[in-house]
Amino acid sequence: MANKAVILLSGGLDSATTLALARRDGFDCYCLSLDYGQRHRAELDAAAAIAQSLGAVAHRVLQLDLAAFGGSALTDPSLAVPTAPSTGIPITYVPARNTIMLSLALAWSEVLQAHDIFIGANAVDYSGYPDCRPAFIAAFERLANLATKAAVEGAPCHIHAPLIQMSKAQIIQQGQALGVDYGLTVSCYQADALGRACGQCDSCQLRRQGFAAAGIPDPTRYC
Amino acid sequence: MANKAVILLSGGLDSATTLALARRDGFDCYCLSLDYGQRHRAELDAAAAIAQSLGAVAHRVLQLDLAAFGGSALTDPSLAVPTAPSTGIPITYVPARNTIMLSLALAWSEVLQAHDIFIGANAVDYSGYPDCRPAFIAAFERLANLATKAAVEGAPCHIHAPLIQMSKAQIIQQGQALGVDYGLTVSCYQADALGRACGQCDSCQLRRQGFAAAGIPDPTRYC
Repeated sequence: MANKAVILLSGGLDSATTLALARRDGFDCYCLSLDYGQRHRAELDAAAAIAQSLGAVAHRVLQLDLAAFGGSALTDPSLAVPTAPSTGIPITYVPARNTIMLSLALAWSEVLQAHDIFIGANAVDYSGYPDCRPAFIAAFERLANLATKAAVEGAPCHIHAPLIQMSKAQIIQQGQALGVDYGLTVSCYQADALGRACGQCDSCQLRRQGFAAAGIPDPTRYC
Repeated sequence: MANKAVILLSGGLDSATTLALARRDGFDCYCLSLDYGQRHRAELDAAAAIAQSLGAVAHRVLQLDLAAFGGSALTDPSLAVPTAPSTGIPITYVPARNTIMLSLALAWSEVLQAHDIFIGANAVDYSGYPDCRPAFIAAFERLANLATKAAVEGAPCHIHAPLIQMSKAQIIQQGQALGVDYGLTVSCYQADALGRACGQCDSCQLRRQGFAAAGIPDPTRYC
């Protein structure tokens, strides 16, 4: 019987590639998505389609109203999604999002008796979001190994962030080689209800540049 | 203007005392409760009453369906709440609960520009729950200081667990001195809809012994 892993699956390009890597490594994959009030809700439909196409054992969507806290353009309709590059931490940053998502993955992994969690944090996000850096991932793994019944009983938890040092182009080339259908993924911060991308926001620009740099045709559906 | 703090408030005896300590220390208190599908839902009403009686600035209840993961007698109706002491980690342990709750407090604190989070983890829980130990609290503080925009920009976050080395009796004596109305608190793992306690579960037994050891009349309403 294969080992189980919990995969954080947003519905975007990075987490789809992460799921494909976990499958390549032989894990039975339990995918977790968070409905946190994000304006680009089409990514949750995308997550379901990706989980199915890559042979996940299960896919669960947890609802959590992070919009109640405010403070991010991804959950606050009064804040515009930027279309020009900014310096510092972008307004699309969701407070403590990766901490929360890893915590939820940790809870499910403990119930499943899984000891591996995969997250698609990567080198591009690294530039702006504090919770995508290698030091953050390492600190969460240390925390996890003090937090759970399994760890106390001697079965440590591993947090895998296989994309963390990869460029967007490298991620796309990796996923292409593993058969990821990027036409199913939604990266746009303000995708419409059908999952069509704006082509303007930071995330769309990074994605488009990634396909160009990878030399792979961009399957994104634009509005 | 006073500094802001986020207080994790369950509605039980420990977190009520923690809120009173944060108020004593001069913080403007923003209380956070989690509706995670717990069977003892009266504690959420208790949390609201406690927040008001101790002068919190705000009280928010976030809904998160941890019952979807299963694995705990507190959220799974098919698992009985034990009434006899057990060895090891009790079945009432909720997987990764404190990790999740601290993560949510971290998110709110970042939006509020608060740099202090209070949690009522204590020495009695220490004996059975991995995520109530001092090493866990310290590891979460290290994680928090790698996770947030505020920390990256030089404003560290402090995780306060003022009860962590105190016995139940010491906690009750401390809260009594600060004017906590323990009649408002609900500790029972299977309290009825009116907040009346069973008097039988682990939590009821610890609470009753605590009042006896403190030499303070027990204001608990029993079924």
